Amino acid sequence: MLPNIPLKNEFTAAADRIGPYVHRTPVMTCSAINEMTGANIYFKCENFQKAGAFKFRGACNRVFSLEAADAARGVVTHSSGNHAQALALAARMRGIPAHIVLPENAPAVKIDAVKGYGGKVVLCPPTLADREKTTRAIMEETGAYFIHPYNDAGILTGQGTCAMEIIGQGIAPDIIMTSVSGGGLLSGTALAADYFAPGTRVWGAEPAGADDARRSLETGTIQPCLEPDTIADGLRASLGDVTFPIIKEKVEKILTCSEAGIVRAMKTVWERMKIVAETSGVVPLAVIMEHPEAFKGKTVAVVISGGNVDLNRLPWQA
Amino acid sequence: MLPNIPLKNEFTAAADRIGPYVHRTPVMTCSAINEMTGANIYFKCENFQKAGAFKFRGACNRVFSLEAADAARGVVTHSSGNHAQALALAARMRGIPAHIVLPENAPAVKIDAVKGYGGKVVLCPPTLADREKTTRAIMEETGAYFIHPYNDAGILTGQGTCAMEIIGQGIAPDIIMTSVSGGGLLSGTALAADYFAPGTRVWGAEPAGADDARRSLETGTIQPCLEPDTIADGLRASLGDVTFPIIKEKVEKILTCSEAGIVRAMKTVWERMKIVAETSGVVPLAVIMEHPEAFKGKTVAVVISGGNVDLNRLPWQA
Repeated sequence: MLPNIPLKNEFTAAADRIGPYVHRTPVMTCSAINEMTGANIYFKCENFQKAGAFKFRGACNRVFSLEAADAARGVVTHSSGNHAQALALAARMRGIPAHIVLPENAPAVKIDAVKGYGGKVVLCPPTLADREKTTRAIMEETGAYFIHPYNDAGILTGQGTCAMEIIGQGIAPDIIMTSVSGGGLLSGTALAADYFAPGTRVWGAEPAGADDARRSLETGTIQPCLEPDTIADGLRASLGDVTFPIIKEKVEKILTCSEAGIVRAMKTVWERMKIVAETSGVVPLAVIMEHPEAFKGKTVAVVISGGNVDLNRLPWQA
Repeated sequence: MLPNIPLKNEFTAAADRIGPYVHRTPVMTCSAINEMTGANIYFKCENFQKAGAFKFRGACNRVFSLEAADAARGVVTHSSGNHAQALALAARMRGIPAHIVLPENAPAVKIDAVKGYGGKVVLCPPTLADREKTTRAIMEETGAYFIHPYNDAGILTGQGTCAMEIIGQGIAPDIIMTSVSGGGLLSGTALAADYFAPGTRVWGAEPAGADDARRSLETGTIQPCLEPDTIADGLRASLGDVTFPIIKEKVEKILTCSEAGIVRAMKTVWERMKIVAETSGVVPLAVIMEHPEAFKGKTVAVVISGGNVDLNRLPWQA
């Protein structure tokens, strides 16, 4: 038994809370990919989610959970990933400021995306110490509430609404598999599956070049992601003390895939499913394509976690 | 009144006939694009259709309409576009051969796609005379039935099932707009709208560099598409004597767009909707983006006609 984990009714409350703001994203199937893998795969298309990724669920849950007085002072985070855009959009929907601390070498396209959702961008030198210092200064100055990208019960509960939808969309998967970085999506999925479809196995998918979660699960203690070497730029974080205990108890296994496998899975999804998915979003499919024996004949739900891609440079182009 | 046009019950029969084989493709909306254009746009995503384009509807209707004895001898067409793949797949589903005549300079990716759907590829020199000669030789040798890509009542009736689905999906558009090349989709859409949602206006969308359909509608006689100059490679055919009379009577207007507008619309769809659409498939959106005044405040259903793209070379990449 885990102490202090989000309860079943907190997931239901999160789904109700964010319902008016999120997309209930479609589940897609692809007979060509099923033939290719021997599995029966349902793709939950969070690349179609608002702000382009599942991250909007957690951000939205967290922002709309704040008491009015706290919310009024705004929110702040440091992230150069999808959490930044998600938090900016969720804050705009609640009508409160979002301060987003970004490294000054962040690509212009990321900075513009955050601004496009109404986020107040604050640039700082590209070190963790600088990001934390800048974030603390904003908190002191404005009273803004810090929203962590994953190591937070409200965030992981929000991410778990994705699995609740999969289950509600009439699919009875043998396995639900998501990618894992800091563990917000995976831990939320594992709890939601346990509450709403007990017996469903939940697996994680990770690049071999950033397999800290696999090593953490195998050793039983958090292994940091020290020198990630992967094109999947959303999967370079380490597990946290909120997410890991849930993963340790509820996730059966974490499988890995190669870099070439990620690129192959991404191109397959674009070509055969005609959808734009990012590198981090296709890691579960890459795992299935590289370990077909583990999935043959199984019904597998995978989350396509996001679709934010620089369309000027695609990974299969030299 | 038009003589010899497909009747309402033929559309209903077509929808029933192809129902078990086609995808009922989703309709998507995009708040960012609505904000950008001022219109309320519903995108009918035929890029998700089997074989990657609406062409499968017509091919399927035609193939499954054949008498058993005719069908057994197979089907044949000459096309280097989406009709080739669509016919190959429809024939495979019926268990009959499909001979696809392709110019010997066709890209390998097209040839492979047709073969991937079980089509028997026959290469010939890249002239119209050679294609017709080769096709006739196959017909004489095998007795295969020739299936025209658009100038055929059964084909256009099949394409019209797309508009029937739009109407059945709970959308009451002021305007339905499709791209126009040979006119199969546009004429089928116009008749289906007239039968199943009378009063709905039907417009065509065309590249300015291949505006033969616009000129045909304005002059009242078929103007050939002699020197098409457009990146939209699916929109270079001329109207036919089956499709044009329907378009002349039932289509209110045909609007055009620039080449830069096509590329801009395509990138917008990929970036904001996270879907893979081909150049020809985004021409209606390009028209809306270039003529927003004609669509402001209107509910517009547009067909994203296909998603078959060479992912190694995207038009916004120099």
